[in-house]
Amino acid sequence: MKEKILELLNNKRYAELKMSLETMNHADISDCLDDFPEEEMALVFRLLDKDDAAEVFSRMESEAQEKLIQVLSDRELSEVVQHLFLDDAVDLVSEMPAALVKRILKTAKPAQRKWINELLKYPEDSAGSIMTIELIDLKKDMTVAQAFDRIRKTGVDKETIYTCYVTDEQRHLVGVVTVKTLLLSQMDQKIESIMETAVINVSTHEDKETVARMFDKYDFLAMPVVDMEERLVGIITIDDAVDVMQEEAAEDFEIMAAMKPSEESYFKTSVLAHAKNRIVWLLVLMLSAAITGTIITHYEEAFASLPILVAFIPMLMDTGGNCGSQTSTLIIRGLATEEIELHDVMKCWWKEIRVALVVGVILALVNGTRIVIQYQNFMLAVVIGLTLIFTTCLSKSLGCFLPMLAKWAHMDPAIMASPLITTIVDCCSILIYFNVAVQLLKI
Amino acid sequence: MKEKILELLNNKRYAELKMSLETMNHADISDCLDDFPEEEMALVFRLLDKDDAAEVFSRMESEAQEKLIQVLSDRELSEVVQHLFLDDAVDLVSEMPAALVKRILKTAKPAQRKWINELLKYPEDSAGSIMTIELIDLKKDMTVAQAFDRIRKTGVDKETIYTCYVTDEQRHLVGVVTVKTLLLSQMDQKIESIMETAVINVSTHEDKETVARMFDKYDFLAMPVVDMEERLVGIITIDDAVDVMQEEAAEDFEIMAAMKPSEESYFKTSVLAHAKNRIVWLLVLMLSAAITGTIITHYEEAFASLPILVAFIPMLMDTGGNCGSQTSTLIIRGLATEEIELHDVMKCWWKEIRVALVVGVILALVNGTRIVIQYQNFMLAVVIGLTLIFTTCLSKSLGCFLPMLAKWAHMDPAIMASPLITTIVDCCSILIYFNVAVQLLKI
Repeated sequence: MKEKILELLNNKRYAELKMSLETMNHADISDCLDDFPEEEMALVFRLLDKDDAAEVFSRMESEAQEKLIQVLSDRELSEVVQHLFLDDAVDLVSEMPAALVKRILKTAKPAQRKWINELLKYPEDSAGSIMTIELIDLKKDMTVAQAFDRIRKTGVDKETIYTCYVTDEQRHLVGVVTVKTLLLSQMDQKIESIMETAVINVSTHEDKETVARMFDKYDFLAMPVVDMEERLVGIITIDDAVDVMQEEAAEDFEIMAAMKPSEESYFKTSVLAHAKNRIVWLLVLMLSAAITGTIITHYEEAFASLPILVAFIPMLMDTGGNCGSQTSTLIIRGLATEEIELHDVMKCWWKEIRVALVVGVILALVNGTRIVIQYQNFMLAVVIGLTLIFTTCLSKSLGCFLPMLAKWAHMDPAIMASPLITTIVDCCSILIYFNVAVQLLKI
Repeated sequence: MKEKILELLNNKRYAELKMSLETMNHADISDCLDDFPEEEMALVFRLLDKDDAAEVFSRMESEAQEKLIQVLSDRELSEVVQHLFLDDAVDLVSEMPAALVKRILKTAKPAQRKWINELLKYPEDSAGSIMTIELIDLKKDMTVAQAFDRIRKTGVDKETIYTCYVTDEQRHLVGVVTVKTLLLSQMDQKIESIMETAVINVSTHEDKETVARMFDKYDFLAMPVVDMEERLVGIITIDDAVDVMQEEAAEDFEIMAAMKPSEESYFKTSVLAHAKNRIVWLLVLMLSAAITGTIITHYEEAFASLPILVAFIPMLMDTGGNCGSQTSTLIIRGLATEEIELHDVMKCWWKEIRVALVVGVILALVNGTRIVIQYQNFMLAVVIGLTLIFTTCLSKSLGCFLPMLAKWAHMDPAIMASPLITTIVDCCSILIYFNVAVQLLKI
């Protein structure tokens, strides 16, 4: 696709290019523009219809948007900005550098500028920050026919028209009615008689992650947002909710791999920025692991008299870490999806401790058999086996309690994922190991 | 909410209960029913309107559905099943035990039964398996008014009516038109003149994960599905696409923590099933870690003459593992979201190796300082520092190459996550460590 556009562009076959752009999907055009150099980007962009241009622009990556704005004239920019949906305009303004923001706001219509500034005031992770104010509102004494008139008159520049909101004089939300219901009703029916009155809504300050989960639960296309006085101020559309879900999952993956989460894409992040996102946790974990090292030095005598003991350190550390991260991953995910709640802590632990016993005994038996065959040393097999069982129980308990503790302390449970659990479990498993060894082998 | 229902139920205030159920959202009712004992579940369920009953039923968890079906009479079951959307009916049939499936199919209408059987034939992860055949199809010579007539006539039992599909006589997909466009057009306009002809569609055999990503990219509410002959056979709605996204993320989290992914919820999975999902990877990784142990035994002389060397093993292993899992997580996620492609392998590696150098040098300096202070041994600091730099470079390279290799071999890159990377890196880092130590410290 990209090659075809570039070819038409290089051969200056603009009419043909314009025609093929018209048949392309907006998201595909944005994809191409993202990768083009500035000059080609501007050339193609200027060939787009005005309506398409704003749609394509809103789907481009922010780096590409920035490049494009710099080559567009004020008049061109103003045409794009004025065609943007309000929530896309807010996204744009919050991502551009200050100098460009000034230019963008200058080119917006006064009403639009006022609303952008209004919406920018909501906290970054709040429902307010991802909502749009462009919605269809109806009154309950309208007829279905009047409702359709209103949709026809005001629907052109609304992001979604399929869920309409019924408000009273004070803009309190009193009901919702879908276009499907409207279409299947008689033209003279009153909105009041067909609207749904049990309206699920969120407040502007609700966490956007919670809102995304509600979309998943209720299968909504749009969610109404109300202010402190329960007045309807905006809606959140499903595409934005899906974006939040994707971002949150990406963030959890990064935190769980001991990184500072980053909103930039992998390739767009510089080497130094990558290093910065990763070094803090690496340093913390490295220095914590030194504690395990210090513990080991206390048992120098033990492994001086039986050097083979050292050979089992990696296996015990890895197995403990893996057991712990299995549990912590399940608990962290459970907390994130609200399947597991704080008061389930003992229920989870009871489950985990039984799983740990089953798993620990199997690991001990398999490994014991290997040790007896490889080293013909039965007592060594018992030492390693007991250590494995203890370590499994301990690491699964920690994997259960630590994320819960983080949640309880209003921290993100995801930081209690495998890297941190592994480091803590290492320390404990080494202590268990040498104590069992010293006791049983009498060294 | 649940308490209120139970209270009304226990006091036999059924009329009141029925009224409050009418104001509740379907998803909330399902949530309550999921947790009720059979008897209460059936009592509440029987109080629901027929239309609501099917909606509530389709959102219940499969264990609860199973319990409920067993207490419903054939007539009651038949009423629920006949009101289900086709894709929900297919989900139900594919999740119930064989005996119940027979009963469910017996109570379905013949046409519905035929379609359920048809849809069950699609492979588990395919677009066909999550699609529904209930869609609004139009012809291109219809007028807008005729289109609305058709929607009114056939829309009642369609899951979504907002995107209509225009087909020719052979059911080939020739265009789409949204209800928004219809509403904003004149009643006498021809569908042909307002429909979008560049239709994005998927084939029935497309991977459902790919389909979910397309929803994210194109912001669709529904995606048309065509067969091998490009004939329209169904649509996939956004709520099902969102479910696929959530499932896939959950699956990746579990695979990346060395578990067999499970579709059951945490609490509903038995202890033995949990143990079974976890033991295989634990065994594989434990036995692989034994290789590291065997390598250590080859360097017995080295740590016999300098026992402090053993104390650094945990720190080197953990740091190597953490570095590797940071990289593998980013690469696995990048591959999953298609931001990173197979041909980017050298570009990724070039980025990672530079990050590794920056990170490795910082780790070496910090740790070196600590060692000089704690042990007053400069050469030891150099040995550990060099090992850290080598290990960081190696683990970040493995974290980059192994997921790519898995992808190339058509395996799930997620299996190359921290647990496996850690085990491999451990082995290598121990080798590097003792070789550097033996060379530099001349032991």
